[in-house]
Amino acid sequence: MYITNTELRVRYAETDKMGVVYHSNYFVWFETGRTEYLRALGYPYSRLEKEGIMLPVVECSAKYKKGAQYDDEIIVQTSVSELKGASVTMCYEVIRKETEELLVTGFTKHAITDKKLKPVKLKKENPELWAALQDCI
Amino acid sequence: MYITNTELRVRYAETDKMGVVYHSNYFVWFETGRTEYLRALGYPYSRLEKEGIMLPVVECSAKYKKGAQYDDEIIVQTSVSELKGASVTMCYEVIRKETEELLVTGFTKHAITDKKLKPVKLKKENPELWAALQDCI
Amino acid sequence: MYITNTELRVRYAETDKMGVVYHSNYFVWFETGRTEYLRALGYPYSRLEKEGIMLPVVECSAKYKKGAQYDDEIIVQTSVSELKGASVTMCYEVIRKETEELLVTGFTKHAITDKKLKPVKLKKENPELWAALQDCI
Amino acid sequence: MYITNTELRVRYAETDKMGVVYHSNYFVWFETGRTEYLRALGYPYSRLEKEGIMLPVVECSAKYKKGAQYDDEIIVQTSVSELKGASVTMCYEVIRKETEELLVTGFTKHAITDKKLKPVKLKKENPELWAALQDCI
Repeated sequence: MYITNTELRVRYAETDKMGVVYHSNYFVWFETGRTEYLRALGYPYSRLEKEGIMLPVVECSAKYKKGAQYDDEIIVQTSVSELKGASVTMCYEVIRKETEELLVTGFTKHAITDKKLKPVKLKKENPELWAALQDCI
Repeated sequence: MYITNTELRVRYAETDKMGVVYHSNYFVWFETGRTEYLRALGYPYSRLEKEGIMLPVVECSAKYKKGAQYDDEIIVQTSVSELKGASVTMCYEVIRKETEELLVTGFTKHAITDKKLKPVKLKKENPELWAALQDCI
Repeated sequence: MYITNTELRVRYAETDKMGVVYHSNYFVWFETGRTEYLRALGYPYSRLEKEGIMLPVVECSAKYKKGAQYDDEIIVQTSVSELKGASVTMCYEVIRKETEELLVTGFTKHAITDKKLKPVKLKKENPELWAALQDCI
Repeated sequence: MYITNTELRVRYAETDKMGVVYHSNYFVWFETGRTEYLRALGYPYSRLEKEGIMLPVVECSAKYKKGAQYDDEIIVQTSVSELKGASVTMCYEVIRKETEELLVTGFTKHAITDKKLKPVKLKKENPELWAALQDCI
């Protein structure tokens, strides 16, 4: 199982009046983890899009244990949990670097589509990326 | 089952380069639906917080069928699906008003806590709100 | 001088750990005011974009007097302050409805461009919109 | 004149349907630049807040030359342009790293206050920080 660690700092803009990070912002961090995961594999998502492969989110979920706070250093651990004909699911663990506490877990499931958001069979369309993702699980 | 309909307009800021609303923003719309739901029940969340009852999100999830677009009029249908000792779960359906299409479904599960985010038994702490939520299911 | 009043509610997501609305979010409210202003004039921005007229922001500014708080009802007063060959400037006043306090003032200056973000002379391209904006000042 | 360079990557969430970064998000990047500037000076803003010094934004402004795009590597150049009795102004230049293009310039002016957002004289309250900021100009 291939895992990447992406680091970021909590922005003031990401907090809310409860003093912790607003829950929807973790999905943006998941995106950051996913972006760096695909780059590490050799397939930056910005390039995939230019080549006509889109990964729109069809489902996502998160569980919150503890809240991240302003200026915390955060690690987003990213992995691939499932690869199907025309979808891929990625998992995330959000960790506070200083204390190594697990703050949030979650996943995003993505359709694999062309530019018009029509499903494509990745194995046929881009067999190298397919193989690379298979090797990650 | 008590359901509220909350209306909003898609903001340009909420779209992304795919031309549709970025997936995490639907959770903000869920918040809008939840806020108006509690207000309709007679318990505005802003007042609950002042009285020392917080509803931090402990889990959330969404499934995406179609993307909302800039300037779409949106209806967020909100309901309560589960009430436990110290948690409440709310469900959402996001509908494009013009076409009546169902775009996104989801839920948020909330701990019921005091200001220090420690769980409280709502039935004891605020029996009227407890009864009102029970009647919604 | 033509002025529109657009109402909105402060979202929890828009607050930060200082307990008030994070400063950049007022520019999103300015957008809401601008969108409703153009709709009131008979030129919804969503339609302008489809017809090939874009209004990208080239400058913006805001001054903050008091902070809006969660669940406040807000009025965004919008007007046109300047119309040039290929740019238009709009002004905003953000008011807390309950207390009628002026919270924030600001402006956004927009280039008037085609889809490729090249400047167009609005007077030639869409003389009706040009005249309508002129009448607003 | 002391200047810091802070690097970040454009997030998908930060783009809008025009395909570039939504204008208000640059103010969040300014915040990132400001945070790292103060940390480099030895006064992390998270610590200042704990010690009771707040820097709420009282004015901000930006000029947009070119749009940042998804996955661009960005440099935020930050400096202090003015220090008064109870306010400080910081300037920003947003640069696309690959092409060295200047995309956006701007400033934020901050009141210097206590936790209740009442102005404090920084020179008296925290003479070391005052001197450090003076040396930056």
